[in-house]
Amino acid sequence: MSDRPRLLRALSGETLERPPIWFMRQAGRSLPEYHELRSRAADFIAFCLNPEMAAEATLQPMRRFPLDAAIVFADILLIPRALGQEVWFEAGEGPRLGELPEIAALADQVEASTARLSAVGETLARVRAELEPDRALIGFAGGPWTVATYMIEGRGSNREAARAYAYANPEQLDALLAVLVEATARYLILQARAGAQVLKIFESWAEGLAEDVFERIVVGPHAAIVEKVRAAGVTAPFIGFPRGAGALVENYAEGVPVEAVALDTQASAALGRRLQAQGRTIQGALDNLLLRAGGPALDARVEQLLGQWGDGPYIFNLGHGIMPDTPIEHIARVVARVTGCDVRVRA
Amino acid sequence: MSDRPRLLRALSGETLERPPIWFMRQAGRSLPEYHELRSRAADFIAFCLNPEMAAEATLQPMRRFPLDAAIVFADILLIPRALGQEVWFEAGEGPRLGELPEIAALADQVEASTARLSAVGETLARVRAELEPDRALIGFAGGPWTVATYMIEGRGSNREAARAYAYANPEQLDALLAVLVEATARYLILQARAGAQVLKIFESWAEGLAEDVFERIVVGPHAAIVEKVRAAGVTAPFIGFPRGAGALVENYAEGVPVEAVALDTQASAALGRRLQAQGRTIQGALDNLLLRAGGPALDARVEQLLGQWGDGPYIFNLGHGIMPDTPIEHIARVVARVTGCDVRVRA
Repeated sequence: MSDRPRLLRALSGETLERPPIWFMRQAGRSLPEYHELRSRAADFIAFCLNPEMAAEATLQPMRRFPLDAAIVFADILLIPRALGQEVWFEAGEGPRLGELPEIAALADQVEASTARLSAVGETLARVRAELEPDRALIGFAGGPWTVATYMIEGRGSNREAARAYAYANPEQLDALLAVLVEATARYLILQARAGAQVLKIFESWAEGLAEDVFERIVVGPHAAIVEKVRAAGVTAPFIGFPRGAGALVENYAEGVPVEAVALDTQASAALGRRLQAQGRTIQGALDNLLLRAGGPALDARVEQLLGQWGDGPYIFNLGHGIMPDTPIEHIARVVARVTGCDVRVRA
Repeated sequence: MSDRPRLLRALSGETLERPPIWFMRQAGRSLPEYHELRSRAADFIAFCLNPEMAAEATLQPMRRFPLDAAIVFADILLIPRALGQEVWFEAGEGPRLGELPEIAALADQVEASTARLSAVGETLARVRAELEPDRALIGFAGGPWTVATYMIEGRGSNREAARAYAYANPEQLDALLAVLVEATARYLILQARAGAQVLKIFESWAEGLAEDVFERIVVGPHAAIVEKVRAAGVTAPFIGFPRGAGALVENYAEGVPVEAVALDTQASAALGRRLQAQGRTIQGALDNLLLRAGGPALDARVEQLLGQWGDGPYIFNLGHGIMPDTPIEHIARVVARVTGCDVRVRA
């Protein structure tokens, strides 16, 4: 067996005897040890920007489960904060953002923003030093549109106001996205240089966009990020995740030269197979609600996913992040099935 | 020119020199005359079940615009109410439902429920008597899963609790869906016999479902409804609308023998053309936020939709209902472009 991480082999287009496995939100609220760790920081942003704590959070699930990849503990809203927009988290309510600054003011902060995110690089270096060589380390950023929805609306929402903004203020939105593309590319370059071997772009709110709008505000900015990162000499493979894009996932795959496309919960078997047939690695798409529910339906669905996609380049994962109240036994059971390893649950 | 309504010709698979046009939620809150009418009824349910008022609401947009179809003014939650679950509307907040009754108790009410909905039949008869013969009349019902989400959660929501219920209580959900299939089929038969020439099933919350779940709780129940209605000798064509189904729209089209599939805002041009190539009529998919926004982007998108789908069987419509604050001028402009008629806006 080579030491080359299984995730990197899958991202090179290899079909493996069993797919690599990791989970979106594998670190964090579903683990009891996370809550203990988190309670030591004053607030969520401070926690994310503390390399010692963030590295520990990143590594916690790696100690519990034989996962094939760690993903750096951070948040997609570190970027607007680094660009000068106020960001804070209301307990139990999620993120809140201050008023959207002028786009020109944000643009002035792009270079400085990367320096303000150096703590994430330190976290990655710490994790890479501790992580076994056959386990990959993933860095990430939010997709520009998703980050823009928070910057425009000031909080999580149904994104209706942001989608309306896309029609009412197209030039301003394009300018905002251009700032985010540049800041995100720099941030991902920083992460790759600090030890991230894979880069993922989470476009969590790609749903409900008309095709022409999707091309303009998702496909174009993602392609620009990949191009900028590649132009800097970074060769780490990309995973693109246009969550909720539906049939527009095919537009995404055509327009964005990412090595893998992550599929969400409602992806069809046929859609995934079409992407694989085009030489694309796919990732996904177990329902996070089914992982929480457990039982024979979970076992059956895992078999179905392995059967429908396992004979092409495939990364086993969820279609959305782990729910906080997911029993650890359910996670362990899926990891054991996919890896073939004995996985024990400790309290 | 034949008197045969253009909508029925498109639903027979004809490609017309220009597509028929109507709008989801064309009747209702976007029209000033609606607000005046609505203020005369005590509450929204009473309004829906008053044939004189509901017929008037149905006809209001037909007087303003040269639309090719009227859709009966009613609500998808009339069915749970007719089955014995309490339903009311909080002003500005949307629907609220009382506790979900035992499934057996609901099943006992199926036959009676249709009689309790006879007012909708009266509304249809009144509208049909007034509507010109070249304009079609559409009846509708909610999709069983969508109606079930309201019955389970007691209100509009992100449907997470209902989707969790689908995993935690699969037998109860299947039993509830079976009751809704039977009640819905009877309700649609009533509507067809009262004058509805087209039947539409609105599965408004088809989004975020895993493929196996979608097949079980959307495709299966829809196919069963169509079969039951056909078995009663009703020949009215169906429009199925699995809103938010993404790539699973193709599963829907394969599994449900509806004459037309309505596409939502994020449908791709390629998806629609694949369905047309399979002999399916499609409907959709202008962004309701763009209709509200107006301007050159609206004009351009209308041209794009006509260009990408107009050379196959196509019904022009939105991807979601008209927003209440949509300027009437924008609606008039789109109707004028698609129909080629001079459309004037009166106050």
